[in-house]
Amino acid sequence: MSGHFITFEGIDGSGKSTQAKLLAARLQADGHEVVLTREPGGSVGAEEIRALVLEGNPDRWSAETEILLFTAARRDHLERTILPAVAAGKIVICDRFADSTRMYQGLSRGDLRGIVDQLHSLMIGREPDLTVLIDMDPATGLARAKSRQTAEERFEDFGQALQEQMRKGFLDLSNEFSDRFCVIDGADDMDRVSNAVYAAVAHHIEAFS
Amino acid sequence: MSGHFITFEGIDGSGKSTQAKLLAARLQADGHEVVLTREPGGSVGAEEIRALVLEGNPDRWSAETEILLFTAARRDHLERTILPAVAAGKIVICDRFADSTRMYQGLSRGDLRGIVDQLHSLMIGREPDLTVLIDMDPATGLARAKSRQTAEERFEDFGQALQEQMRKGFLDLSNEFSDRFCVIDGADDMDRVSNAVYAAVAHHIEAFS
Repeated sequence: MSGHFITFEGIDGSGKSTQAKLLAARLQADGHEVVLTREPGGSVGAEEIRALVLEGNPDRWSAETEILLFTAARRDHLERTILPAVAAGKIVICDRFADSTRMYQGLSRGDLRGIVDQLHSLMIGREPDLTVLIDMDPATGLARAKSRQTAEERFEDFGQALQEQMRKGFLDLSNEFSDRFCVIDGADDMDRVSNAVYAAVAHHIEAFS
Repeated sequence: MSGHFITFEGIDGSGKSTQAKLLAARLQADGHEVVLTREPGGSVGAEEIRALVLEGNPDRWSAETEILLFTAARRDHLERTILPAVAAGKIVICDRFADSTRMYQGLSRGDLRGIVDQLHSLMIGREPDLTVLIDMDPATGLARAKSRQTAEERFEDFGQALQEQMRKGFLDLSNEFSDRFCVIDGADDMDRVSNAVYAAVAHHIEAFS
């Protein structure tokens, strides 16, 4: 039996990381073997690359070098964590994946979407089976993100105008990849969002198992 | 006045690093501003990536992840060290560049030459103005390399059969990129090799200044 590769995407403060954890717990309670992981990082090597990219001066890498480092981390994460688990029939739940690179590197540091796409096609290839986009009003999301921001999270320090762009960008991606995206309204309370996510994922698992 | 970007390539023990240093000294004595650098590494960020790739278990990265990391290091090296120096009219002498990736990743860990070339075309683009290949009999080269091998230099631990393949591979590259390769016989004594290298480089500089 082949497993499933499910990703969560959304702007900062959307609650996607919390929802990924809640989903993992519910699927485990249902008897599934679940691997909960995240990007950048998610494997020993990818976590080392993550540290190289996210720590230190934000300008230490150009946008292009940063995309190469994220792609190297993703390749390692895919080879060492995601694909072996999916092949073993597990459900992999990943907090951010290539869609975040399409958004953040594509929008925040020049129009590099073309390079991101070509690198993805050449070195990654694999898309998630299902992507849950937690859609969220940026004002709400930003207030939530600021309340828990750490020094490492410089990518989240963009302000509300950029968050508006990001929200629109994620919604555009959900149209571009409509076969795998599922958009969930994140403004509702946590338990109701969790129920909506669970229903969508359960439907996917039933359809593709 | 635009500068020059000159690389040295060759199998281990060919003497290319020594010859790169000798050339730098002679060009400086002639009054040129010279930047002597090396790959992997050559800029602050690229040296950090170099350490990530070359230290630790040789199997910690797949061939594909390794190529991505080398390409990230090269992009940083090119942006931060090579291109600014060339733009300032300096002569950049680099011990190894993309031809080494074409050879070592292409030959030693599966036939990845296609991926190496596509990544180079997408993220690097720039070729050296002149590449000096120090050609060397592998038996001689291997004996020289073993006498000075450090723990980090795992790429050099291939044995003579692979060195034969590498020598042939570099000669094949010199035919593929005949417009920029200059092949120098490295078996001669060090000073005579240095004279031959200097003559070839001086000819290039005169022709393209």
